[in-house]
Amino acid sequence: MTSHLIATYELRPSPGESVEAKASDITLEQTVELPESVLSRHIKARVPGRILAITAVDEGCWRAEIEYPDIAPGTELLQTVNVLYGNISLKAGIRLVDVAWPDAMLAAFGGPGVGMTGLRELTGVRDRVLLATALKPVGLSARDLASHAALFAEGGIDLIKDDHGLANQPTAPFQERLTACQRAVERADGNALYLPNVTAGWPELVERTMAAAEAGCRAVLVNPLLSGLETMRWIRDHTGLAVLAHPSMSGVFFDAGHGIAPEILLGDLFRLAGADMVIYPNVGGRFGFDQALCDRLNHRLRAPLGTLRACAPVPAGGMDAARAPDWARRYGADTILLIGGSLYARGDLKQAARTLRDAVEAIA
Amino acid sequence: MTSHLIATYELRPSPGESVEAKASDITLEQTVELPESVLSRHIKARVPGRILAITAVDEGCWRAEIEYPDIAPGTELLQTVNVLYGNISLKAGIRLVDVAWPDAMLAAFGGPGVGMTGLRELTGVRDRVLLATALKPVGLSARDLASHAALFAEGGIDLIKDDHGLANQPTAPFQERLTACQRAVERADGNALYLPNVTAGWPELVERTMAAAEAGCRAVLVNPLLSGLETMRWIRDHTGLAVLAHPSMSGVFFDAGHGIAPEILLGDLFRLAGADMVIYPNVGGRFGFDQALCDRLNHRLRAPLGTLRACAPVPAGGMDAARAPDWARRYGADTILLIGGSLYARGDLKQAARTLRDAVEAIA
Repeated sequence: MTSHLIATYELRPSPGESVEAKASDITLEQTVELPESVLSRHIKARVPGRILAITAVDEGCWRAEIEYPDIAPGTELLQTVNVLYGNISLKAGIRLVDVAWPDAMLAAFGGPGVGMTGLRELTGVRDRVLLATALKPVGLSARDLASHAALFAEGGIDLIKDDHGLANQPTAPFQERLTACQRAVERADGNALYLPNVTAGWPELVERTMAAAEAGCRAVLVNPLLSGLETMRWIRDHTGLAVLAHPSMSGVFFDAGHGIAPEILLGDLFRLAGADMVIYPNVGGRFGFDQALCDRLNHRLRAPLGTLRACAPVPAGGMDAARAPDWARRYGADTILLIGGSLYARGDLKQAARTLRDAVEAIA
Repeated sequence: MTSHLIATYELRPSPGESVEAKASDITLEQTVELPESVLSRHIKARVPGRILAITAVDEGCWRAEIEYPDIAPGTELLQTVNVLYGNISLKAGIRLVDVAWPDAMLAAFGGPGVGMTGLRELTGVRDRVLLATALKPVGLSARDLASHAALFAEGGIDLIKDDHGLANQPTAPFQERLTACQRAVERADGNALYLPNVTAGWPELVERTMAAAEAGCRAVLVNPLLSGLETMRWIRDHTGLAVLAHPSMSGVFFDAGHGIAPEILLGDLFRLAGADMVIYPNVGGRFGFDQALCDRLNHRLRAPLGTLRACAPVPAGGMDAARAPDWARRYGADTILLIGGSLYARGDLKQAARTLRDAVEAIA
């Protein structure tokens, strides 16, 4: 930890631009938003960011550590994100690759409400990796989705979530789907949880989250980059429901030379904002994360961070059920494997779920 | 208009990938999230997107028009954005460059609450371009910021907004700043509006927006990509305040080969979500928009779109006050010129504002 916010950027200056000028511009752009010449001595001494170090990484690429005084971010999450990357997102060749968080911020943001430990209590799963799947596709009726939910629950899946594209479409309106799926999961043997997708504007997100709590759900799914990062804190503080965060839209941040590194956005920021579990596209699936990145992200979600609870990594995105034991071994038990399409491809959902469950129990 | 949602993507397939396969993958990924082989005949016929056309643009680049059936987006804004670009943000070489909006969506989203016409009523400015500036820097006290506000109002600036980095820092806490700045602007001659920055999580955004309305403000500033796109609709529907949208964080979307084109994100999506005015980085300032893009964005914000009100383009980001008449001529009177640093650089804020106002009145 650190006493002030420290951001590390990878900088790729344009031709003719020095790395020092580029770093110095960030210290002003992200705080005072004025040229230095216009600042009073009082402001100049207290408010702009401070360059702690600049080190060469590679041909044309440097790492710059910038410390921001407490005045700029304050202790609110959105303003902190704004300081870390808001306006400079519109400039070229700046990538946020690391953040050191002051204790005051960690305490103010709070992080996961239940974390991995709480999820073990909710599901009753002590030792093994947890299993999750998705109800899909959009277009099915609430009844059809609920019958999928029942089969998955009976087959031994621990967390059964809505597909993140299920909102409030007329084919399966939210309230009808919530009631049907939650009832289906409760009726099945076991401790399976149903996680409805509450992503929506306000006040709909509030209404749907409250409805989920009333229906007996213990966790919900949300797309924080659509509904706003702070919706996770609201859910945590006002309902106590566990939060499964979906990475929809996050890919725009992940350019190799610009944006925010996945382990900072999906790792630190999602965790700080209150996610108990974070879905990410596992290596080898439909998306482009490599193994080293997945390992870093898992580490970041679970690493000690002030007094924050550990968050559960949820690798997903086209994982083959047959490889689940391999992933469980590689990623460790404090992981949730989210497997959807590969179960649907087997036809008999209950049997497919049971086979998967048996396979991961065998290695627990 | 169109009866279904139609998205146009620029596609840059990877080596060995066909453009047809890439487009086809989008039709599934953004709707059913399952391979075609797993879908029932009923779902296959009704739910996946449909490729309307693929045309070559350039070496290695095509445009694909994809029509989405109503079932996938429904009529909620966040799920619509999710369908347009959610998961495919995590794939490579896909850029959303145009959208045709069905009437039902336009009616459901609603767009600007007051629009450019309403802003003319609020400010009493009939014919000329509107002038805006920002209170800064963070680190000043509420009293100092309020004295800036008074000088700008007396000098003839129409819209005086908080810098988007003013949140609730101890140096100028929100409520104290709101009261001081609003009072300062009311005391000055004229119709100037003060726009406090209400960007925050819930319930703070609600509390701050209600406080702004109670204090007598007629408009507020929000960073929708931080607080969530739908916060603009909430402000519109629950307070009637006009909304000035800030582009903080939007730069992550603007890669040349990936993401969402600025005229779609800051143009269509911000307007549809309820922005009355949209700030963007003007050509020649601190950021990288070129002239053609600024022109397209202005057009998109004001062009007919169902029954939606026209939105006011707000070029900003290091504009020189001396060039304000040029911009007013080029962009037309239904524009808001946001000029901050260039006024501060002149030292005497009231005189700088007066000179700017005189200059744009001379060309009205």
